[in-house]
Parts: sequence; C-alpha cells; structure tokens
Amino acid sequence: MDAEMQAEAGHQHGYIGSKDAYLKRLRRIEGQARGLQRMVEEEKYCIDILTQVSAMTKALQSVALGLLDEHLSHCVVDAAREGGREADEKVKEASDAIARLVRS
Amino acid sequence: MDAEMQAEAGHQHGYIGSKDAYLKRLRRIEGQARGLQRMVEEEKYCIDILTQVSAMTKALQSVALGLLDEHLSHCVVDAAREGGREADEKVKEASDAIARLVRS
Amino acid sequence: MDAEMQAEAGHQHGYIGSKDAYLKRLRRIEGQARGLQRMVEEEKYCIDILTQVSAMTKALQSVALGLLDEHLSHCVVDAAREGGREADEKVKEASDAIARLVRS
Amino acid sequence: MDAEMQAEAGHQHGYIGSKDAYLKRLRRIEGQARGLQRMVEEEKYCIDILTQVSAMTKALQSVALGLLDEHLSHCVVDAAREGGREADEKVKEASDAIARLVRS
Repeated sequence: MDAEMQAEAGHQHGYIGSKDAYLKRLRRIEGQARGLQRMVEEEKYCIDILTQVSAMTKALQSVALGLLDEHLSHCVVDAAREGGREADEKVKEASDAIARLVRS
Repeated sequence: MDAEMQAEAGHQHGYIGSKDAYLKRLRRIEGQARGLQRMVEEEKYCIDILTQVSAMTKALQSVALGLLDEHLSHCVVDAAREGGREADEKVKEASDAIARLVRS
Repeated sequence: MDAEMQAEAGHQHGYIGSKDAYLKRLRRIEGQARGLQRMVEEEKYCIDILTQVSAMTKALQSVALGLLDEHLSHCVVDAAREGGREADEKVKEASDAIARLVRS
Repeated sequence: MDAEMQAEAGHQHGYIGSKDAYLKRLRRIEGQARGLQRMVEEEKYCIDILTQVSAMTKALQSVALGLLDEHLSHCVVDAAREGGREADEKVKEASDAIARLVRS
C-alpha cells in the first residue's frame, strides 16, 4: 500500500491505530468460541456453558462499542468537517449500526 | 425565548423539531406503564405481562435510538464543524450514552 | 373471589405475593415516563434524556426478570409436578417470553 | 461411559440430543470470529465490521436461548418432579443465567 492509499485508508478507518489490539481481542473471542465447543463436546453443565456465552457476548459488544467510538471520532467527524450530504449519510449509517447493536 | 437563545437551543437540541412526536410517544409509554399496573392489579397471567414489558422496552429503545440519531446529526456534527476539543468531548459523551443503551 | 378461585389464581400467578412491591416499582416506572416528558418539554440536553431512558429500561428489565423468576418457581414447577403435556407447554411459553426479553 | 453414567448425564444435560447441531452452530460462530479478524486485518470499513459483529451476537444469543430452553425442559422440569429444595435451586440458577443473558 503506498502512502497516499494509506492516508486514505487512515482517513476512513479510525480503528487502524489500534488494529493489533482489536486483532488480539478477536483472537480471544475466537478462543472462547472454541472453548464453548469443548464444553459441549465434554457435555459440561448447561448453566456453565450459558455463563461462557454471556461472557463472550459481552466481549463482542465491547469490541463493537470500541469500533463505533473510533468510527464516530474519525469517519463521522471528518465527514462533518467536509460538510455536504456526506455527513448526513455517515450519521444515518452510524445510527443504523447503533440500532442493530442495541437490538442484537 | 428570543431569537438568539432559540438558535442556541436549536443548535444544542436536535430533537426539538420533533418535540411533539416525542411527547406523544412518551405519553404512550406512560400509558403502557399504567396498563402494566392494571394487569398486576387484576392478577393477569405472568406471560401476558412479560409480553407487554417487552413491547414497552422496545418502544423506549426506539425513542432512545431516535434521540441519539438527532443528537449525532445536530449536536455532534455541529461540534465537529466548529472543531477543537469540543468535538472530541461530544463524541466521547455520545459513545458513553450508546454503551449504556447497548448494555441496558 | 371465593377461596377456591383464589387458590387457583394463587397457583397460576406466583407474583401475587409480591403484588404490592410490583405495583410500587411500576408506579415508579410510570413516574420515569412522566419525567422524560418533562425533560423533552423543557428541552433538556439529549444525552441527559438518554441517561434517563437507560435507567428506565433497566428498571423495566428488572421487573421482567423478577416476574419471570416467580413464574418459573411457581407456574412452571407446578406444571412439571402435575406432569403431562402441560409442563412442555409451560416451558415453551416461558422460553418464548425469555427470547422476547433477550431480543428486546 | 457406562449406561448408568450416561443416563445420569442425559438427565442433567438436555442439550445432548442436539449436541452435533450445537457443535455445528458454534463452529460457524468460531468462523465468524475468524472472519472478523480478516476484516480488521484487511482494514475493511468499520460499519461492515459492526454488521458482522451484530450477526455474530445474534447467532450466539440464539445458541444461548436454545440451550436455556433445553435446560428448562429437562433439568428444571426433572428437578421439579423430584421435589424438595433441588427444584428451588435449579430455578434460582436458571433465573440468574437468564438475567446474565438479558443484561449482556
């Protein structure tokens, strides 16, 4: 990726600065998914499995809230500064994503 | 309220244009809260009460998502345009509110 | 209501013992709905309104979880003891109510 | 595992009949976690990542609701039939798990 594309990508994707941190969190979530399979495989007690599912859901939500915060800070704020219809579209898109998170 | 104050208020509170619509929705939610009391008073079946609680929760969430969308469109976008630390603070505040909604 | 009907109702509706406590909590929730209308009426800051909406949603969820617990303790357990298809139906009904709560 | 232990396990863990189905769903969820890492790695658009997180959260919730339904149908109903304090404990445990799901 050349410098210009990188600048462009940096502009659009506010989470890139913390890319490694997000990858680490997602790998841990992948590990939780494997842990759940092991629990089902070994016929662990249902309530203990549910406790792990709740922990994994919380970890996922926390990743989503982090990404959303960076998206608002960078992408939405930048679009607002540039003005025009772009800002409205970015807000609409963010609001729709928030609604999906709240309802999931 | 003089014109300047109105402009100021309009600037801060994006939902004001739809104030009547929000009041109407909140009055309906208040009515749902009274309906639930009546159901408990009349010892209605528990599952039917829970169905009403879910409907009321959805109505509340929908009000919250509407307010949040207007807040992003007006308050956050305006702060971004003005620039400076104000934009960061507004985004932080909005992200915290979103986290409370997602976790409630 | 004669004694037999009362016994019947008591059998079906486990929350009746705490009826007054539920009514009190629902009246407080109704008060929160009125408080929200006042905030919109007085054009309070959007984020402060959202904080109140989150508190109200949590209060509602807590009522729902309480009712559900009493429903499982009484209605579902009693149906299980009587045996037959009634137990299956009660569990199905409770699971559907739980799904609505989790998804709302 | 001898027949008696199997009966015991079958008694406690209602989801065993659909073990393969749950394993399949959890493997798909693990795949979603890997897909998210790929999206972050390739610096995909934030909103598209959030859409995938919402889909994954829904899939997890659906697994949880399925496990809970089987737990109520088997474990809680069986405990209720045996009577005594066991039933109360099982209901308390299930209610706590439901609260964690609703709040996560």
